[in-house]
Amino acid sequence: MTEEYVGGIEAGGTKIVCAVGTGPEDVRAETRFPTTTPVETIGRAVAFFKEQELRFGRPAAVGIASFGPLDPNPASPTFGMVTSTPKPNWANADLAGPIREALGVPIGFDTDVNIAGLGEWRWGAAQGLSNFIYLTIGTGIGGGVLIDGKPVHGLVHPELGHVALPHDRTADPYDGRCPYHGDCLEGMAAGPAIGERWGKPAAELSPDHPAWELEAHYLALALQSFICTLSPERIVLGGGVMEQPQLFPMVRRKVLEYLNGYVQSPAILDHIDDYIVPPGLGNRAGVLGAFAQAQLIAAGQ
Amino acid sequence: MTEEYVGGIEAGGTKIVCAVGTGPEDVRAETRFPTTTPVETIGRAVAFFKEQELRFGRPAAVGIASFGPLDPNPASPTFGMVTSTPKPNWANADLAGPIREALGVPIGFDTDVNIAGLGEWRWGAAQGLSNFIYLTIGTGIGGGVLIDGKPVHGLVHPELGHVALPHDRTADPYDGRCPYHGDCLEGMAAGPAIGERWGKPAAELSPDHPAWELEAHYLALALQSFICTLSPERIVLGGGVMEQPQLFPMVRRKVLEYLNGYVQSPAILDHIDDYIVPPGLGNRAGVLGAFAQAQLIAAGQ
Repeated sequence: MTEEYVGGIEAGGTKIVCAVGTGPEDVRAETRFPTTTPVETIGRAVAFFKEQELRFGRPAAVGIASFGPLDPNPASPTFGMVTSTPKPNWANADLAGPIREALGVPIGFDTDVNIAGLGEWRWGAAQGLSNFIYLTIGTGIGGGVLIDGKPVHGLVHPELGHVALPHDRTADPYDGRCPYHGDCLEGMAAGPAIGERWGKPAAELSPDHPAWELEAHYLALALQSFICTLSPERIVLGGGVMEQPQLFPMVRRKVLEYLNGYVQSPAILDHIDDYIVPPGLGNRAGVLGAFAQAQLIAAGQ
Repeated sequence: MTEEYVGGIEAGGTKIVCAVGTGPEDVRAETRFPTTTPVETIGRAVAFFKEQELRFGRPAAVGIASFGPLDPNPASPTFGMVTSTPKPNWANADLAGPIREALGVPIGFDTDVNIAGLGEWRWGAAQGLSNFIYLTIGTGIGGGVLIDGKPVHGLVHPELGHVALPHDRTADPYDGRCPYHGDCLEGMAAGPAIGERWGKPAAELSPDHPAWELEAHYLALALQSFICTLSPERIVLGGGVMEQPQLFPMVRRKVLEYLNGYVQSPAILDHIDDYIVPPGLGNRAGVLGAFAQAQLIAAGQ
C-alpha cells in the first residue's frame, strides 16, 4: 500500500454505507445495512472497520456524512451528535464519539449534503471550482455550499431546502407539507410533496405528467435565489427526484427565464447545460465524499 | 509615519468619496464630489490622490468600492470596469485602469457592498466573523457575502437584491418595479418601491405608517432565505431605508416568526438583537472598507 487508506460512512435515515479505500477507483471493501438504533448501528459500523483493520492496518481517518440536523463544529461540546431529528432514538445521539473511541483514529463529521458536495468537488462534477452548490431533492431537500473546497458552516449549516418561495395559490393550491414553514422549497417540491399533491408516488408519475413542469418551476425559483445569493460557478442537482431525466432541461429553461438576463455570465447565458448538472459521482457522492473528508482530516486540514 | 497609508474610493452613482489614511481613527484627508462623466470624475479623483502624494508620499495601494454591475475578477480582461449599468456614460467604463496608470500603485476593485462588508469585518459590526452578510437597502438593494473575511465572488458577484420572494397579491397588489424580475426583493422593498406603492417618498412616511410593517415583511422573508442558504453568523443591514429605526425590531420579530424555530441556534433564538444589526461604521463602511481592501492588496492578499 503506497497510499494510506481511509474510511467513509454515509449515514442516512434508512440505511448506512461503510467503505474503506482511497478514492472512486480504489474502494477496497464496502457494506450497507439498515439504520436501526444508534447502539446497534454504530456497533455494526465499528465491526466493519475493525475487520478492515485486520486486512489493511489502521485507517488514517474516518469521515462521516450524516443525516441531520447535526453539530459539525469540532469546538462544540455536542460535536459529532445528531441533534433535533424526529427519527426515533436518534435525537441527541452521539454518532462520531463512539466510533472515534472504538477505532482510535481522527473522525470527520458533517452533513450528508456537505460531504456529498465535497465528493463532487474532489472527484465529481465540481472539480476544483471555487464556489458551487450541491443540492439533493429526495424525501427532503438539502444542500451544501462549498467555497474554495470547504463546506460553508456559519452558525450551524445551511438548510437550502427551507428558503421561502413565491407561491401562486391560484395556479397551485397545495399548501405544502413542511412542518415548520408550510410552503418553503422542501414543503412544495420534495418527493413526498409531489406524491401528496398528485395522489400517487412521484416515481409512478409519467414523464409527461404536469407534475414535472410544476416541480421544475419551484426548483428554478429556488435556483434563481441561490444564484443571486451566492453567484455559484455551478449547481449540482442530485437525489431521487432528479432521477427523472426530463427535469434537467425544464429546470435549466426556467432558470434562464426567471433570471431574465440579469446575471451577465456566459456560464449561465451560453452554457446552462454545463451549469446545472447531475452529480458526477451519482449516488456515490456521499460515501466517496466521506473518503475525501477523512483525507482532509488526516492531512490536518 | 510608522504605518504605510492607503487610498480609498467609494464610487456611488451620484457621488464619489476619496480618502487617504490607515483606518477609522486615521483618515488624513478626504474629499467628495458628484459622479459626472468617467473622464471628469476619474480626473478629480486622481488629482486628489496626487495632492496627497505630495504630503504623505506614495500610497501602498488604492481600493475602489464601486457601483455596479462590474467586473471584480483580476484575471479578466474587463477587470476594473463598470459593465452593464444604465447610468449614462458609465456602461463599460474603465474605472480602475486609468487610476492605476495615473498613480502607479496596486488597485483593488470590487462592488460597493462587498467593500462595505469588508469594512464592517475589519472595523465594524462583523469583526472577525467567519461568515456574514452585509445588506444595503436604499435606492436599490444589494449585498456582500463574506466568508473568512473575503467577499464571495463566484461567477460574477452576488446580487442579493434579486432573490424571488413570496408575494401575496391580495394583501399587497403592488406589482414591483424591478425591470428584470418585477416583484423580487429590490422590486418590492427598495426605497423607490416604497415611494411608488404609497404615493410619497419613503423618507416622508411617518414611523407608524403601515408601509414599515410591509417593508419589514419582505426584508424578513429575504433574510429567512439568506439564513437558510448561508447560515450567516450575523446580518448587517445598512442603507437609507434602514435609517428608519423602527424597522430593526420589526424585521427581527418577523425573522423569528418566519424561521419558526427551525434553525436551532442561540445566536438567532436568544440573541436576535445582536444578530440583525446596523453597520458599526454607519455610512463610512464603503470608504473605510476601501482602505481595508487596499491594505489587503498591499499585503499581497
